[in-house]
Amino acid sequence: MDTICALATAPGGALGIIRISGEHSLEILSRIFTKDLTDARPNTIHYGHILAPEYDAVLPHHTEVIDEVLVSVFRAPHSYTGEDSAEISCHGSRYILKKVLELLVQNGCRIAHPGEYTMRAYLNGKMDLSQAEAVADLIASTNQATHQMAMSQLRGGISSELSRLREHLLKLTSLLELELDFSDHEDIEFADRKELKGLANKINKHITQLAHSFEIGQAIKQGIPVAIVGKTNVGKSTLLNALLKDERAIVSDIHGTTRDTIEDTIDINGVTFRFIDTAGIRQTSDVIEKIGIGRTYAAIEKARIVLWVVDEKPSQEELNKMRLSCENKKLIVIRNKIDKAENKAFALVKIPLIEISAKHGNHLADLEQAIYQSADISSLSDSEVIVTNARHYDALTRAADHLQRVVKGLQTQLSGDLLAEDLRLTLDILSEITGGQITPNEVLGNIFKNFCVGK
Amino acid sequence: MDTICALATAPGGALGIIRISGEHSLEILSRIFTKDLTDARPNTIHYGHILAPEYDAVLPHHTEVIDEVLVSVFRAPHSYTGEDSAEISCHGSRYILKKVLELLVQNGCRIAHPGEYTMRAYLNGKMDLSQAEAVADLIASTNQATHQMAMSQLRGGISSELSRLREHLLKLTSLLELELDFSDHEDIEFADRKELKGLANKINKHITQLAHSFEIGQAIKQGIPVAIVGKTNVGKSTLLNALLKDERAIVSDIHGTTRDTIEDTIDINGVTFRFIDTAGIRQTSDVIEKIGIGRTYAAIEKARIVLWVVDEKPSQEELNKMRLSCENKKLIVIRNKIDKAENKAFALVKIPLIEISAKHGNHLADLEQAIYQSADISSLSDSEVIVTNARHYDALTRAADHLQRVVKGLQTQLSGDLLAEDLRLTLDILSEITGGQITPNEVLGNIFKNFCVGK
Repeated sequence: MDTICALATAPGGALGIIRISGEHSLEILSRIFTKDLTDARPNTIHYGHILAPEYDAVLPHHTEVIDEVLVSVFRAPHSYTGEDSAEISCHGSRYILKKVLELLVQNGCRIAHPGEYTMRAYLNGKMDLSQAEAVADLIASTNQATHQMAMSQLRGGISSELSRLREHLLKLTSLLELELDFSDHEDIEFADRKELKGLANKINKHITQLAHSFEIGQAIKQGIPVAIVGKTNVGKSTLLNALLKDERAIVSDIHGTTRDTIEDTIDINGVTFRFIDTAGIRQTSDVIEKIGIGRTYAAIEKARIVLWVVDEKPSQEELNKMRLSCENKKLIVIRNKIDKAENKAFALVKIPLIEISAKHGNHLADLEQAIYQSADISSLSDSEVIVTNARHYDALTRAADHLQRVVKGLQTQLSGDLLAEDLRLTLDILSEITGGQITPNEVLGNIFKNFCVGK
Repeated sequence: MDTICALATAPGGALGIIRISGEHSLEILSRIFTKDLTDARPNTIHYGHILAPEYDAVLPHHTEVIDEVLVSVFRAPHSYTGEDSAEISCHGSRYILKKVLELLVQNGCRIAHPGEYTMRAYLNGKMDLSQAEAVADLIASTNQATHQMAMSQLRGGISSELSRLREHLLKLTSLLELELDFSDHEDIEFADRKELKGLANKINKHITQLAHSFEIGQAIKQGIPVAIVGKTNVGKSTLLNALLKDERAIVSDIHGTTRDTIEDTIDINGVTFRFIDTAGIRQTSDVIEKIGIGRTYAAIEKARIVLWVVDEKPSQEELNKMRLSCENKKLIVIRNKIDKAENKAFALVKIPLIEISAKHGNHLADLEQAIYQSADISSLSDSEVIVTNARHYDALTRAADHLQRVVKGLQTQLSGDLLAEDLRLTLDILSEITGGQITPNEVLGNIFKNFCVGK
């Protein structure tokens, strides 16, 4: 396989790291380094200079040294890729980094494709495919929730979940084979089918649960959608501004690590919440009236959590209507303007009610905790694993389809041969997630093409 | 001294490197790392996990692991700063990098000030002050010329030049002391003064040459200023576009290393040339006529190289006028539109003449080489060192003033005591450049405040 090189850090810092991986890494590097590294011990660091052999000099003196660097040496199989590899820690000058990459290419390296290091780690058995995919998610993670989902997947969360499923499926298969062997004895078959049905249902539930977790996984990745609704002048825009302002203030100011400002999202306990369609709310507070109530319901439709801002007790009709449109959503009623004497307190049955003053910032922390609890993320930990990857979701959905046919087949007394075929397909599809034995090149290419270069 | 930490790479890459330096580096790091590193051997690499002890978990499972990392261990005095230090190679997630920095701070580190690692390297005698300053220049270098100037300075170019000057100054001082000792003997004094004068003049010339190189150093750093002048419709804007377009095409497209697009500059043989006031040229070709000829001369004033575009032989009067305004500049006459039959060839005496067709791109390479040669950068290598730093230039100018007084004093038979005082000041001022023994904290603060964090 080619020896590859790439910049593994973003350009513009004090340091820039260039990664080399492949059989000839140390041989190639030694040609442009002051020290011969071909016999360097693994996991050691070497100080030296990167030298350009025929340096077309502007200033004839001091011509040959491109940079003073540290080289870290890794040896197969104990490296990220599983191959011999090295990392050159250069000064972060664009000129230097470009020059070092050019020298490496001139001496036999090829510039790596996006994700090629991780792809090699997968191909060399350092991690399975779902773990490889987690690397990209980990790098992209911006808060605690996305970080934990990626880290869980990287540490084999999905993989161990799938191997548990696989075990059950194999058991089901062997029971089915047993049934086939004794297919002459009608009475035995009947007894086995009961156990088969129970097991199939259990597996089916497990796969469906996993597939279902994708929705939450997506919500966590993109921010859990929240709609703020209510009549004109109840203080919707003031509330939004108060929540966003609060967020701005707690953003860490450690140099270089401040996350990109994302409009209209807040982080509560490490989970991102995204306000839907809020541009209108702040632009003019009566825009909803102008466009009509339809727009409010469109926002509710897209939300997982609905914040219904009121300044007086809603009528029973209004309550019923809102409840109806918030089916499968979490609804929080917010009584705003508690600082105003004319606004009277009231109680509601079975709907959480938070009393605040958006204007004076009273009880906003309570509201945030209510929003966080509505997301109900901890309940998801029942399944221990959250599916965040569309490819995994797709495989789980297809696997569930085949297993569904097994379940139905068992009910309709379908022949064991046909059931076995669907079971085999279920197993095959699930093994796509971790890579299994058969992952065609184009599939791999698709998976890794969205990685950053250098990983 | 505090143990400091900072992100040393730009955020946004596949990897992020966090640097720790100070007495307690390995002790602090061991508190959040899966492995005890307090006895780790120098220049070794360690695989492990960064752990958060009391991790406020969103997902109760897989809570403790912040990242899988590689830690490089360095031991005093054989590290960049001269102190015990470590580098954590993390996945480049903003969340992870922020979290690791937070954990380090919680366990006893302080976030480093800009340039603090390099300042410590200076304070611990790993490099002198001019070398420390070169680190920032090296990181900022974007082409071969700026890179070479910074690398030369980092490798002690300025320092060795100054130690040569120092030697001569000390010789002058000792000769002066000899004169003082024999001050009763008038005849001896007279003989010595001749040698003193010769030596003082030689040193003076050397210092002045160094100070003078600053102008070129600045030009190279910012791009050597070039003015394009000429009558309406001679093809000035076409020429500029042709030169810039040519540059665009040769810009390397290695991912992540492409330099920021800088408007109206071109790189020739690794040197940047910057076109002065070109906005007008492209906006409308007769803008110079509109604003008056004064604007042309203003551009010439700021340029080091003047490209005079013509389509017919200039009159002797025009030639004389242009020569006069281009004193101390390099003038290149460009006969454009050679593709047109009506434009007749002509010759010029003592002024380089390049014949091109800007429209068809003929002989542009010849023109670029002529521009490059006009910059006359190689002639500067006589002094071997180019001063690029304003602080150094300031010191050299002040030192030159004092030495000038010595030179004059020797001519006016000033007493040896007074000359010795100026000589001492010259020496002191020159030693400011490399840091000498006495560099007050506020001076250091000023020098390092423009560094990036993490270096």
